[in-house]
Amino acid sequence: MSRTPQEQANLDFVLKMFEQVLTPMDSGTVERFIHADYIQHNPMAEPGRGGLKRFLDMIREQTPEAVHDVKRAFVDGDHVTVHYHVRRWPGDAGWAVIDIFRLEDGLIAEHWDVMQDVVEGGPNPNGMF
Amino acid sequence: MSRTPQEQANLDFVLKMFEQVLTPMDSGTVERFIHADYIQHNPMAEPGRGGLKRFLDMIREQTPEAVHDVKRAFVDGDHVTVHYHVRRWPGDAGWAVIDIFRLEDGLIAEHWDVMQDVVEGGPNPNGMF
Repeated sequence: MSRTPQEQANLDFVLKMFEQVLTPMDSGTVERFIHADYIQHNPMAEPGRGGLKRFLDMIREQTPEAVHDVKRAFVDGDHVTVHYHVRRWPGDAGWAVIDIFRLEDGLIAEHWDVMQDVVEGGPNPNGMF
Repeated sequence: MSRTPQEQANLDFVLKMFEQVLTPMDSGTVERFIHADYIQHNPMAEPGRGGLKRFLDMIREQTPEAVHDVKRAFVDGDHVTVHYHVRRWPGDAGWAVIDIFRLEDGLIAEHWDVMQDVVEGGPNPNGMF
């Protein structure tokens, strides 16, 4: 593995954010991980750090049993990629999601994501993960 | 930038595959880039290298004007992530796509992706890219 100590720290920081913010959908922990000038590219979330907090509150209210199951994660300098499976309730086929985060000043400063319904029964017997 | 020479070569190889295979949707160049034991996770493509060739032939016939516009790309060891915008025809809002590739023996041996329709007019004025 060729990661520098700083890269490993960046990756660990993002995975800790998954554990402490995204998995519990806890808007109260956002300031520890998200930059004040956060640039959000998820098209359905309001922009900025405050918008993320409201987004987390909304999804926790709508889907309190949601799980975010990390499948693989990578780091290249100040960018971290995470591939994961969201299931909103038990038995949900859920979404495949890949997030890309950019870190700045030791915090997550920018975020892009792509989400897709998990396909069941297509021509490919390999799973999406 | 902290990439090793091998990581930079891996990233360059994947971007060359975009130029020579995906952008021209050219099934004739697949063998130069794709491992014989290719593991495909795109749920709508048939598995394997042969399935990829048929997939490329199909999309080139259906959308000969498609463009694949790479926005950012990263490498971590033998894994490469590419975030890009597919437009199937002029004026198409298109798809946001993130691909993850795993390299082995100097070729692309495994592939995951997530695709989403580009959202226009949502609550976030920032674009998806």
